[in-house]
Amino acid sequence: MAQQRHIKLGFILHGVGRTWNDWRHPDRDGNASTSLAQYQKQAATAERGKFDFLFVADSLSINEKSSPHYLNRFEPITILSALAATTSRIGLVATLTVSYSEPFNVARQFASLDHLSGGRAGWNVVTSWLGDTAANFSKAEHPAHAVRYRIAGEYLDVVQGLWDSWENGAHVADKESGQFVDPDKLHRLDHKGEFFQVRGPLNIKRTPQGQPVIFQAGASDDGRAFAAKRAEVIFTHAATQEDGQAYYADVKGRAKGFGRDADQLFILPGVAPIVGDTDEDAEARYRELAALESIDTGLGNLSRTFNDHDFRQYVLDAPFPDVEHIGLNSQQSGTLRILAQVRAENLTLRQIAERLATPRGDFVGSAETVADRLQAWFESGAADGFVLFEPLPGQLDLFVDKVIPILQARGLFRTDYEGTTFREHLGLPVPDNRYTAAQSAKSAA
Amino acid sequence: MAQQRHIKLGFILHGVGRTWNDWRHPDRDGNASTSLAQYQKQAATAERGKFDFLFVADSLSINEKSSPHYLNRFEPITILSALAATTSRIGLVATLTVSYSEPFNVARQFASLDHLSGGRAGWNVVTSWLGDTAANFSKAEHPAHAVRYRIAGEYLDVVQGLWDSWENGAHVADKESGQFVDPDKLHRLDHKGEFFQVRGPLNIKRTPQGQPVIFQAGASDDGRAFAAKRAEVIFTHAATQEDGQAYYADVKGRAKGFGRDADQLFILPGVAPIVGDTDEDAEARYRELAALESIDTGLGNLSRTFNDHDFRQYVLDAPFPDVEHIGLNSQQSGTLRILAQVRAENLTLRQIAERLATPRGDFVGSAETVADRLQAWFESGAADGFVLFEPLPGQLDLFVDKVIPILQARGLFRTDYEGTTFREHLGLPVPDNRYTAAQSAKSAA
Repeated sequence: MAQQRHIKLGFILHGVGRTWNDWRHPDRDGNASTSLAQYQKQAATAERGKFDFLFVADSLSINEKSSPHYLNRFEPITILSALAATTSRIGLVATLTVSYSEPFNVARQFASLDHLSGGRAGWNVVTSWLGDTAANFSKAEHPAHAVRYRIAGEYLDVVQGLWDSWENGAHVADKESGQFVDPDKLHRLDHKGEFFQVRGPLNIKRTPQGQPVIFQAGASDDGRAFAAKRAEVIFTHAATQEDGQAYYADVKGRAKGFGRDADQLFILPGVAPIVGDTDEDAEARYRELAALESIDTGLGNLSRTFNDHDFRQYVLDAPFPDVEHIGLNSQQSGTLRILAQVRAENLTLRQIAERLATPRGDFVGSAETVADRLQAWFESGAADGFVLFEPLPGQLDLFVDKVIPILQARGLFRTDYEGTTFREHLGLPVPDNRYTAAQSAKSAA
Repeated sequence: MAQQRHIKLGFILHGVGRTWNDWRHPDRDGNASTSLAQYQKQAATAERGKFDFLFVADSLSINEKSSPHYLNRFEPITILSALAATTSRIGLVATLTVSYSEPFNVARQFASLDHLSGGRAGWNVVTSWLGDTAANFSKAEHPAHAVRYRIAGEYLDVVQGLWDSWENGAHVADKESGQFVDPDKLHRLDHKGEFFQVRGPLNIKRTPQGQPVIFQAGASDDGRAFAAKRAEVIFTHAATQEDGQAYYADVKGRAKGFGRDADQLFILPGVAPIVGDTDEDAEARYRELAALESIDTGLGNLSRTFNDHDFRQYVLDAPFPDVEHIGLNSQQSGTLRILAQVRAENLTLRQIAERLATPRGDFVGSAETVADRLQAWFESGAADGFVLFEPLPGQLDLFVDKVIPILQARGLFRTDYEGTTFREHLGLPVPDNRYTAAQSAKSAA
């Protein structure tokens, strides 16, 4: 009997919040982004809910006007290593940029995390997008977009090559003979590429997962191509189920084009469920959240989208002003999506500004409603699962206690972990070690 | 009443062992270097013993002939972050090289570890010494020795500057007003130096210790000067009490020469105590350890010290051969020290070869004897404390259960932690934030 396809679930540890001002909620800890205790609590709850993984985002440049969750945060490898020691099953996915780090160090840190956690590490490969990041790394400028993905591809080659340095059985540790390592199973990489020259071997043995799981979060054309070719999990954003379906079909198609099994590439949009006792109660909670946000944040978003046009000149509760003449800036798709929403729902300026400042998404309602929506996305080819944000404090607990049991009753989500490693949760095999595979092929020939 | 001066104690987490072959002991876990469980056990024991800190060494290059404890090991930041979550008082000191990393990343990882641990992070600043490390980092060659310490000095300037990015009170998080950060207390570094250009600010707020504790382990003249100027703790090696005294006097003198309070610079030689029920029992345990080592390791050490002269041609149990004519290589001081030992104790070739393969040190004996020796070093100006290796499995427990109570009874060691941060254990103040200090000076003027 074929195993039923299950929703994959991640939880993003975003500390003080997701949006600009949701840290102002009375129940939100203003220090959450550097509180181990807070993250331990969330990790334990997500593990109780049998989530596949925890996710930590990252960035490397701030100024006094940066969003609160950018300003002050743990470095991802450190917080996830700490959580490795206080959790036992849940995957641990850290974001780390290829633009300002060394592949040997990064290969080593993820291998180390994979050993520490008994096989639960994942790496979200990013190229960094904040232009002024270069100024923190003795560089004149950030690499151009197209070059960044060339760098990323070669960087990933090096890291995955280093992860194969030790074959299974290379670590002998035979006390009788005194042999600690089998030199025939310990390999140099001897990589000589366009951007990197790395000899190896890595100074840590093969990890429980063989290769930590590769995540990607690319929305651009280059990003999609990279993700379709190299990623095992994609963390994406989709404003609507239709957007999700379009992205899903595009990237799965690209993956097949690369000769991959599209079922071994998981596409997980970020969602921010707000669960209430009833749909109305959930809607009221969304309003409570939206009220934390200053209308200026939304007007600022609109302004940036419409060529710096000043929206403060209009009446907030009047219909959305006629700004079609202003023209589109480089964020064309975003601008058109806003205008489409305004027309479809006949929104006032305040309504669309609030929606931009506090994205509502598709998952506000009773536990049944939220489960229905998740199921609809999952079954209509918009998602293989989801990465949850916690838009309001307490929502993770509500999701685990109310929504997960419904998904389980419907056979859509696991009732317990299938194994101990992150790859086992995802149903992904441990990749062959390249040297072992080459040896087997030679023996078979 | 002035507080009595106390011995400072660290424990080095060296996994499978200290010497080439001590992993072959029947009680040693051959997988100890990548076992979180093993390290957690040692960390808990050291914390039970009220040790000041745990220490993790590092290196970044291996080949199939490397020593077992180099071949396979955790990356220091990851293992110490994990241990931060399962300990509550003990300091956590990670070795990290300035030669193959970015100061922004390193500043951030240590700040993150300091927050995670509630103020227990320390950084052992090294410049790397294995020449072939460059090949793992896309570099043609390792920087020359003198340049390395210039790089290290500027690197440390940048990291310590970034740690001051946030003044106390910069993180406002006032929900009422909506102010998350006070822009007047958040600072760019704008460092423009010979090797690095780093803007800042760091994207994590000021840590519990303000500045994680700086360690150094330099034996060369450049290394000593750097340590005397910048370090707060020096992890050194001293073969004898006299060597320890000479080093201690030299470096404390240099520190005073830099205008520093020499009492705020702690000099800690590495020691490998072997505690037995009696002195004879301890001696037997040392013999058990030495027996694990192949005589070839010691003969190889001798050969490298005497211009590659082949010592396998001599009878092992005869007096040490006459090799004075062979001449000295670049390791002059080491060669002379060997000849002095041989003459003073009339050693056979086997005895000196074993001693080189398995350094015996000054701390083999009953608990009383070991305590006496530690006290003698401490009170004679050879040490402010010690970094313990565990030459035989079980020795850390013996030290904690047998030696520490003697030191405590003599008033030489704490009976409980004085505070919660590593700086508090050392009696070192939290350094002033440079911007706050400048502001205070301005107000006072």
